[in-house]
Amino acid sequence: MSEFRYELIKECRDTGARLGKIHTKRGVINTPIFMPVGTQATVKSLSSEDLVEMDANVILGNTYHLYLRPGQEIMDKAGGIHKFMNWNRPVLTDSGGFQVFSLNDLRKITEEGVEFISHLDGSRHFMTPEKAIDMQNSIGADIIMCFDECAPAGADYEYTKKSMEMTTRWARRCKDAHKRPEDQALFGIVQGGMFADLRAQSVQELTDIGFPGYSIGGLSVGEPKDVMYRMLDATTPLLPKDKPRYLMGVGSLDALFEGTIRGIDMFDCVLQSRIARNGTAFTSHGKVVVRNATYKEDFTPVDPECDCFVCRNYTRAYIRHLIKTNEILGARLLTYHNLYFTLVTMKKIRQAIMDDNLLAYKEAFFEKFGIAE
Amino acid sequence: MSEFRYELIKECRDTGARLGKIHTKRGVINTPIFMPVGTQATVKSLSSEDLVEMDANVILGNTYHLYLRPGQEIMDKAGGIHKFMNWNRPVLTDSGGFQVFSLNDLRKITEEGVEFISHLDGSRHFMTPEKAIDMQNSIGADIIMCFDECAPAGADYEYTKKSMEMTTRWARRCKDAHKRPEDQALFGIVQGGMFADLRAQSVQELTDIGFPGYSIGGLSVGEPKDVMYRMLDATTPLLPKDKPRYLMGVGSLDALFEGTIRGIDMFDCVLQSRIARNGTAFTSHGKVVVRNATYKEDFTPVDPECDCFVCRNYTRAYIRHLIKTNEILGARLLTYHNLYFTLVTMKKIRQAIMDDNLLAYKEAFFEKFGIAE
Ligand SMILES: [Zn+2]
Ligand SMILES: [Zn+2]
Repeated sequence: MSEFRYELIKECRDTGARLGKIHTKRGVINTPIFMPVGTQATVKSLSSEDLVEMDANVILGNTYHLYLRPGQEIMDKAGGIHKFMNWNRPVLTDSGGFQVFSLNDLRKITEEGVEFISHLDGSRHFMTPEKAIDMQNSIGADIIMCFDECAPAGADYEYTKKSMEMTTRWARRCKDAHKRPEDQALFGIVQGGMFADLRAQSVQELTDIGFPGYSIGGLSVGEPKDVMYRMLDATTPLLPKDKPRYLMGVGSLDALFEGTIRGIDMFDCVLQSRIARNGTAFTSHGKVVVRNATYKEDFTPVDPECDCFVCRNYTRAYIRHLIKTNEILGARLLTYHNLYFTLVTMKKIRQAIMDDNLLAYKEAFFEKFGIAE
Repeated sequence: MSEFRYELIKECRDTGARLGKIHTKRGVINTPIFMPVGTQATVKSLSSEDLVEMDANVILGNTYHLYLRPGQEIMDKAGGIHKFMNWNRPVLTDSGGFQVFSLNDLRKITEEGVEFISHLDGSRHFMTPEKAIDMQNSIGADIIMCFDECAPAGADYEYTKKSMEMTTRWARRCKDAHKRPEDQALFGIVQGGMFADLRAQSVQELTDIGFPGYSIGGLSVGEPKDVMYRMLDATTPLLPKDKPRYLMGVGSLDALFEGTIRGIDMFDCVLQSRIARNGTAFTSHGKVVVRNATYKEDFTPVDPECDCFVCRNYTRAYIRHLIKTNEILGARLLTYHNLYFTLVTMKKIRQAIMDDNLLAYKEAFFEKFGIAE
C-alpha cells in the first residue's frame, strides 16, 4: 500500500492557490514547492549536505541523462539514486521525453517509441514508454513521470492533437509497465499545446486512466507567458483536487507566483542555477549581475535581506572576483544563494496562502524586485 | 610588539624533525604543517567553512595572482585577504617572485626589479622588492615573503651565486620596506640552487639581516628528489632553531615525511588539489584514480579508513560519475578529501614526533601506501 498522498490544507480565498502536503515514505513535501534540478544526480556544484542545509524538500533528476550516464546497470547496482547521491529526501524524475524530443533531427517517433541518437557519443537508442518506466524503476525516484511526446513549440492543431492522443496511449502503457507503484508515484502528463480544448481532452483521458498526480507538460517552450497562463487557466480547474499538480520545467520568479495562483503545487527550473554559474543573483531588490564591474568594490552581501550562509559570510566584491577568475567557488556560492532565495520565496508564498494575502504578497514582492525575467 | 613567535616543543630523537607551534595573532599553527593553496584567494572549489571544518590551520595566497586580480586597490578597500575571503585564521603569501620568474620570456631582471608581462592580458608591469612588500602589506597575510629571484632549474654556479646574492640584497630592501612588521612576519628566502656552499652563504647572509622565519626556495624545480633532500641536509642545520622553516611549494606525501625529518616546519603544494580536479585521490592504500573504469561499480568510500564527510557519505562510483560528466561537485569532493587526508597525515606525523617513532610511522605509512609520487 503506497504512502503517497496529497493533503489539501487550504485553498486561497482570492485565487486558485492551494496549500498542501505531499506525503511520501521519504518525508513530507510542503506545497507549493520549488524543486532544485539535479540533472546528472547532482545539483550542479552543491553537495547533498548543502541541499539539506538550505532545506530543499525534494530534488529532480533527469532520466535521459541518467540513462546515458551512469546508465541503468549502475543505477541498479547502486540501489537507486538516493543511495547513489547520498540524498535521503524525495526525488522526482522526468521521463526523458522532453530531452529526447529536444534532439530534433536526432530522433524518429513512432507509435512504439522514439529512436534517438545520443548527444554524447552518437550512439543509437530506442526509447519506449515501457523502457522509460523501467529506467525510472531502476532510478527509484519517489515521483516518476509517464513517457510523453512534448510537441514542438508552434505545432499546429492537428499535430498537437495526434501527439497528445499518443501521449495518452503511452500513459496507459506506462501505468501497465510500472513495477513499483507502491514505492513510486507515477504522474500522468497533460499535453495539448496551446489549445485549451486539447488540454481539456488530455485531462479527461488521463484522469480516466487515473494517476496519483498530474504534470502539465509542453509549456514554457517559447510561447509568451500570458499564453502559458491561459493554458493553466484552462487546465488546473479540470484536475482532481485531491492530487498534486506539477508544472514541468517552469520556475522563474513570476511563474512561481502565477502558477501558484492557478493551482500549481510543484515547480522546477534550471534558471536559478544557470544564471548563478553565469554570475547573476536573484535578490530581494531584483537581479544583480554580480559579474559586472559595478560590484567590484561592493563589500555588501549578495542580498542584504537574505540570511543564507553565502550572504552572511561573503561579499559581492569577493564573488565577482571568483566569477571573473573562473573559480568554481563563485558558481557554487551563487547557486546556493539563488536556490535558497527561491526556496525562501516559496515558503513565504505558502505563508501568504495560509494568511489569505497571496495577491498582496505578490504585489509587495515585485514592487521591490522589479520586473521579473 | 609582534605576537609572532615560534615555539619548539620537541625535537625528534632519531631525526631532525621538530614539533612546534607558531603563535600568531590569528591563532596557533601546529608544526610541521601542510598549508592548502588558495592562489586567487580561494582554495579551488572549497569555501572557508569547508577549510575550517577540515581544520586547516593556515592557508596560502599568491601575491602575483592577487596583484593582477582583484588588484591592490580592491585588497586595500576590502581590508585585506582575511575579510575579503572570510577566513579568520592565519594566511601566508608568497612574494610573487616564483610566478614572475616562471614567465621566462615575458620578464626582464635588473638589480632594481623585474619587468614582466601579465599572462592574462599582456599588460606590462615592473615589480620590485618594495612593491612586492607593499602589495603584501595590502593583502595583509600573517606571514609574508621577501621578493626573491628563483633561479631557473639547472642554472650554473656563477648564475646561481649572483642570483642568490641579489636575493640577499633584495631581502634587505624588503625588510626596510616592510610597513607592518608588528602584524606580518616577513620571512627571508634561502636560495643557492643545488650548491651546498651557496645555500650556506645564503643562510649566513639572511640570518645576519635577521628575520622571524626562513623559507627555502628554489627547490622542487625539476631536480631529482635526492638532490632536493641533500640541499635540505645542507641548509636546515644552519638555520636558527628558534625560527620556523618553510619549504616553498613542496608537499607531495614523501616530501612531507622527508622534509619533516630534515627539520622543515611548513609545507604547501597544489598537487593535492590538482590531482583531485583530475579525478585522483590519495588514500591510505595509495593513489586511486577514481576516474578509471575500474571504479564505476565501486560503492565503497574513496578511502575506507578516512573519516572525512566525503568518505562518510559518498562512493567512488558516484564521484567517478561526477568526474566523467564534468560535474563541479566531483572536483570539490576529491579536493576536500585529498586535503583532509594530507592534514590528517601531518597530524599523525606530529604525533609520531611526540612519540619518538617518526621513522617507524613513515615506514608503516609507505608500507600501506606504496610508492609515493
Ligand atoms: Zn543569500
Ligand atoms: Zn576522505
